[in-house]
Amino acid sequence: MSDPQDSEVFELPNFELEQGATLRPAKLVYKTYGTLNADRSNAIVYPTAYGARHSDNEWLIGPRRALNPEKYFIIVPNMFGNGLSSSPSNTPPPHDRGNFPHITVRDNVRAQHRLVTERFGIERLELVTGWSMGGLQTYQWAVSYPALVKRALPFCGSSTTSPHNIVFLEGLEATLTADAGWNGGFYEQQPRKGLRAFSRVYAGWGFSQAFYWEKLHRQLGFESLEDFLVGFWEKDFGSHDANDLLAMLWTWKHADIGTTPGSDGDVRRALGSIRARTVAVPAEKDLYFPPEDEKWASQFIPNGDVRVIPGVWGHLAGLGINPPDTDFLDGVLRELLASSL
Amino acid sequence: MSDPQDSEVFELPNFELEQGATLRPAKLVYKTYGTLNADRSNAIVYPTAYGARHSDNEWLIGPRRALNPEKYFIIVPNMFGNGLSSSPSNTPPPHDRGNFPHITVRDNVRAQHRLVTERFGIERLELVTGWSMGGLQTYQWAVSYPALVKRALPFCGSSTTSPHNIVFLEGLEATLTADAGWNGGFYEQQPRKGLRAFSRVYAGWGFSQAFYWEKLHRQLGFESLEDFLVGFWEKDFGSHDANDLLAMLWTWKHADIGTTPGSDGDVRRALGSIRARTVAVPAEKDLYFPPEDEKWASQFIPNGDVRVIPGVWGHLAGLGINPPDTDFLDGVLRELLASSL
Repeated sequence: MSDPQDSEVFELPNFELEQGATLRPAKLVYKTYGTLNADRSNAIVYPTAYGARHSDNEWLIGPRRALNPEKYFIIVPNMFGNGLSSSPSNTPPPHDRGNFPHITVRDNVRAQHRLVTERFGIERLELVTGWSMGGLQTYQWAVSYPALVKRALPFCGSSTTSPHNIVFLEGLEATLTADAGWNGGFYEQQPRKGLRAFSRVYAGWGFSQAFYWEKLHRQLGFESLEDFLVGFWEKDFGSHDANDLLAMLWTWKHADIGTTPGSDGDVRRALGSIRARTVAVPAEKDLYFPPEDEKWASQFIPNGDVRVIPGVWGHLAGLGINPPDTDFLDGVLRELLASSL
Repeated sequence: MSDPQDSEVFELPNFELEQGATLRPAKLVYKTYGTLNADRSNAIVYPTAYGARHSDNEWLIGPRRALNPEKYFIIVPNMFGNGLSSSPSNTPPPHDRGNFPHITVRDNVRAQHRLVTERFGIERLELVTGWSMGGLQTYQWAVSYPALVKRALPFCGSSTTSPHNIVFLEGLEATLTADAGWNGGFYEQQPRKGLRAFSRVYAGWGFSQAFYWEKLHRQLGFESLEDFLVGFWEKDFGSHDANDLLAMLWTWKHADIGTTPGSDGDVRRALGSIRARTVAVPAEKDLYFPPEDEKWASQFIPNGDVRVIPGVWGHLAGLGINPPDTDFLDGVLRELLASSL
């Protein structure tokens, strides 16, 4: 990356969570790219996705990209549970491992808001954007802080976790915890069988049917299906702590902008409160964040629009591994950032 | 049912399987509906699906249905591994439990062919039809015995298990076997955690995203998602033996008409050898047997066609639980049976 600075930590000394527990402290690890200008008007927030870390977002940032660090000050906060910010794997007792408390998307966004306003004194964000769970956070930003967010671009995400998406997550959760080695979260070694099964279940959802039909895993350097399952999927999720994966999964499963104070449990009302110019960018064949959900949501956002990434890469169109998808997304980001508001 | 006779057993004394093992004997359990006419020209074969038994096929059979037992002699053979025909759960040593041999779709169809020809002396079948894995068997019937099968109607199935479908199955297999209680197939009690996780993973695939979005599980009598996961999915798969589920899964994963002798590993060539009038009936939003696969296959079948079940019930459109889907399917069956060949 053009900006080699290391990640930094923002501590929230007594961070009370929506579900009741208090982290003392909560640690929000983040990395910034570019320089905040004098009037603090060039900031972008780009939260991380499920199982991702700030470095996983860097493919979309660069001098030739819409997210240009020579122009913008880009803050990438790590989602709680991802192993860098406060997580089961790095939190001391009494909130360690299986005792780690439940954290909502709104908790994440509230902590990020404090980082943005308290540490950097930023009063307006040019853009909030994010992939997948980053998209959930993007929507929550736009609903919780409508005066602060000028533009929002959730990609391959949704405003609220849909019922089918919840079923998908129930399958993953049951799979990982079916391994007796998990032991309620108090394991000495990672539950490898559970993590392996988790990865294999995920593999069917991450890409579309057509992706596999066309054997596009070969473009990623994996000749056989089995090699792809092991070398791509098991390698990815196998690098995570099981409790961390379950903590982020809980966050995901319970994402609901309708429960934001003032929205009375009504997702439509929450969407209606968004002031940001919002362009949702789902992928055509995304199996768990399908474009239909985003089209439904868009009709309730006063300045909302949808642009669908065409093609067969499904949810992982937003992972930065297929250049045409990346170019499409970058183009929509560029257009949105160029729009005067 | 109009015909209350019990199921019967067809024994194959030394049944050599494609993978090399010999079952002594293999038992093929079947049930028939209606009466074989004098010239044996009114027979239909309707094999079972994954995790199904002959009784699970009965919703599509009846005097007001295309599969009318007052007109046709309908044979429903139970697939090997389903707990009635030879299965890990009912086969004595040396082929019991974790030692049960691998059985292909072709093995199933070969045994069914012997039942049809040896026990009943049938030389022509009016129709072979089946749902899901029953569809895999239907295609194999049409390829293995082109002169015998006049009409074929696979619904929510495919000619060969697609790569994405294989990934889906890899996830299920890894999930069930991640439970240490499975113990390589030599358990004293069913691996309940593995079966629970298996059911929950399956739940995401069985119906479409839109089915859950519209909360159509309420039509099936389940108010909440959790109630549906437990009362529908866990109840269904929880009634099966884990090894039986894994045996049928192996059969499914390896289904490939291209490996039929004479086809040289070429699915297109196998499809081209079909002589039956073949109407594939996929469901619009089926997530693991998507209509695209059937449209692809159809173009290589000399007398092939595709009719898509519209709507949001996905793969389970073929389970007989949504009357409009059932009526659509019944209509296509009626039309096909009425066609003169």
